[in-house]
Amino acid sequence: MAVDLRELLDPDSTAVLTMELQRGVVGDLAVMPHLRDAVEAENILPHTADLLRAARRVGARVIHCTAMFRPDRAGSPANTPFTAAALKKPVTLSVGSPAVEVVPELERAASDLESARMHGMAPFIGTDLDPMLRAEGIRSVVATGVSVNVGIFGLVLEAVNFGYRVVIPTDCVTGLPADYAADVLTNSLALLATRVSSAEIIQAWRA
Amino acid sequence: MAVDLRELLDPDSTAVLTMELQRGVVGDLAVMPHLRDAVEAENILPHTADLLRAARRVGARVIHCTAMFRPDRAGSPANTPFTAAALKKPVTLSVGSPAVEVVPELERAASDLESARMHGMAPFIGTDLDPMLRAEGIRSVVATGVSVNVGIFGLVLEAVNFGYRVVIPTDCVTGLPADYAADVLTNSLALLATRVSSAEIIQAWRA
Amino acid sequence: MAVDLRELLDPDSTAVLTMELQRGVVGDLAVMPHLRDAVEAENILPHTADLLRAARRVGARVIHCTAMFRPDRAGSPANTPFTAAALKKPVTLSVGSPAVEVVPELERAASDLESARMHGMAPFIGTDLDPMLRAEGIRSVVATGVSVNVGIFGLVLEAVNFGYRVVIPTDCVTGLPADYAADVLTNSLALLATRVSSAEIIQAWRA
Amino acid sequence: MAVDLRELLDPDSTAVLTMELQRGVVGDLAVMPHLRDAVEAENILPHTADLLRAARRVGARVIHCTAMFRPDRAGSPANTPFTAAALKKPVTLSVGSPAVEVVPELERAASDLESARMHGMAPFIGTDLDPMLRAEGIRSVVATGVSVNVGIFGLVLEAVNFGYRVVIPTDCVTGLPADYAADVLTNSLALLATRVSSAEIIQAWRA
Repeated sequence: MAVDLRELLDPDSTAVLTMELQRGVVGDLAVMPHLRDAVEAENILPHTADLLRAARRVGARVIHCTAMFRPDRAGSPANTPFTAAALKKPVTLSVGSPAVEVVPELERAASDLESARMHGMAPFIGTDLDPMLRAEGIRSVVATGVSVNVGIFGLVLEAVNFGYRVVIPTDCVTGLPADYAADVLTNSLALLATRVSSAEIIQAWRA
Repeated sequence: MAVDLRELLDPDSTAVLTMELQRGVVGDLAVMPHLRDAVEAENILPHTADLLRAARRVGARVIHCTAMFRPDRAGSPANTPFTAAALKKPVTLSVGSPAVEVVPELERAASDLESARMHGMAPFIGTDLDPMLRAEGIRSVVATGVSVNVGIFGLVLEAVNFGYRVVIPTDCVTGLPADYAADVLTNSLALLATRVSSAEIIQAWRA
Repeated sequence: MAVDLRELLDPDSTAVLTMELQRGVVGDLAVMPHLRDAVEAENILPHTADLLRAARRVGARVIHCTAMFRPDRAGSPANTPFTAAALKKPVTLSVGSPAVEVVPELERAASDLESARMHGMAPFIGTDLDPMLRAEGIRSVVATGVSVNVGIFGLVLEAVNFGYRVVIPTDCVTGLPADYAADVLTNSLALLATRVSSAEIIQAWRA
Repeated sequence: MAVDLRELLDPDSTAVLTMELQRGVVGDLAVMPHLRDAVEAENILPHTADLLRAARRVGARVIHCTAMFRPDRAGSPANTPFTAAALKKPVTLSVGSPAVEVVPELERAASDLESARMHGMAPFIGTDLDPMLRAEGIRSVVATGVSVNVGIFGLVLEAVNFGYRVVIPTDCVTGLPADYAADVLTNSLALLATRVSSAEIIQAWRA
């Protein structure tokens, strides 16, 4: 397994993706308190921060996948029950506002990249994430962030459909309720990705 | 709700998608008996057949999203645990073989379209499904087929990310285990799509 | 013809795209003097500014398609002779620098959108332009900017392949040499798009 | 140069693409006699056949990019002057008909792949070509076929935007008029791709 992880996670061709780990989603400006609480209860941010630090040390690229909206919501379709409900409230993840920033716990570095989107529920379709990964010669992506319900499921699924291999550090992702998130990892994501702990990934990079 | 469904499902801009309802997946040539058994136990095929009949009657387009592979597997990446395992066995959904055919219960019509893929786990990325839908002026898609674990989840997620509105007739989709599939509909798909019964859709088309 | 243009250019479903009309491409910070000179000689900016003003007046969306690069060029592949040559020089269209700004002649408005890219030679593939257009219900795009040699040709071709109808105000685009640009419009773009003058478009919007 | 070509055209990561070299486009069932005549006059088919033979010998993948239409034209938008004109005539490249077949001069092999499309004017957007190339580990594509006016220009541009490096054997492509096609190669495609003769490519594979 250690050998497999080393090949699968070769720093030259691996990128760690953070999914919506933004102040307005899981940080101090979070509008969905339950999700932020789950992130806190499970130490998602400390685990992910450790992983990102290790990634930067070995030269694996870090890319923050973020969501943001214009105040007039131009460019953002309201084509789901989730977004239709969000429409009734003022825009919270406003382009250029503090809420869209990556949470400070992740100690964003100058070498980190960002792929932002104003539409949809996952980070690949209709964004620059795939060209960014291709330009960097990436073949494997490590999925961290929220939520296993939709965003992480979407990231993993889209990544697979774009030809990438996916690794999920299960202590760096969460969803609601907690037992449902665990079921998704077991019954769906296990078919699509390799599940490990962040410690195993860091260990593979030390070898 | 009836009014919403009628607008959401306007036949001129609605397409019913069947996901992998093929002989080699859920029919007589199925290699995954558990999935086929679930489909049988829940009457997925009779419900879906009724829905397709009604769709064709009102002029809503029917599109079969299928999976197939070349015997030499060229064009099909083995980038997931699922496909890596499948690689150890001979190709079952071979291009041009009976296994890839849409199951006869759906009474495929000449007006039905098909979008086939040799890669990935969902029907939009890297296929002609989106251009096909756009050419037909489609704005809403109805998701039927398998599985809620991956394929249907993927279809719904990708459709949403491509800007479509999605309706799920819950009696036309299934996954394993059955209670997990129900949880996915409640905790994930409810955020992305409108869930109804096939009878409600047929009723909306009669209005 | 006037009737066709009015339907083709219905403000509710039309967007005017500007292609790389940035200070570092055709403005005061331009590094390719020949292109900037051609733009000046043919009054491309005044014509385009008039068109954008008219578009905003009738409510047609304006979207600026821009190119930019990180100083470390991460995310930007060097896969063409053009970019390989550019690599030998310092980055000129640096993210966040004045060079990437839309030229002041276009009087950028708050209602204008922007789709930026760090890769490739055209504005659709691997960017948010298509989701942006879909979210706004756009069916026709008007192509302005540079260059007919590559960027405008690419914009028109990609737009067509994404299902849009394209209109080219020939006095709002240019390339080098000038007679080659004219040949491209005649022998290639005429097959893909409707060619008119910006005055005809403005006239259609007045009707 | 020889060294560059050898790296650029490593058979393990190179695919030769044929663009619309079909019986109904450039063969015995061609409806556009001028294009077929140009192809004949310039020996495009013999040159390309030699190239494909050499490619198959060294293990470089051959992929035929084809166009076809349903008799009812479902899935095919009429969003350009070219297709609007084609609509007035019966469908010639009908799915499953002899006209869509690759011309016999190319001696299609079982190891050849095919990426078919029913929309647009180029082979990547909304098709399985990119996933097919990625699954095969392709990094460079060799462009052959028709026409330099639109289809080949589109193939090259889209390939570049998807991150591939492109090589054009100039004796394996053509357009109309002949001098315009030469200008396109000089003033546009030279920026995007490496131009050589098919003999140079075959020579590089022999080294």
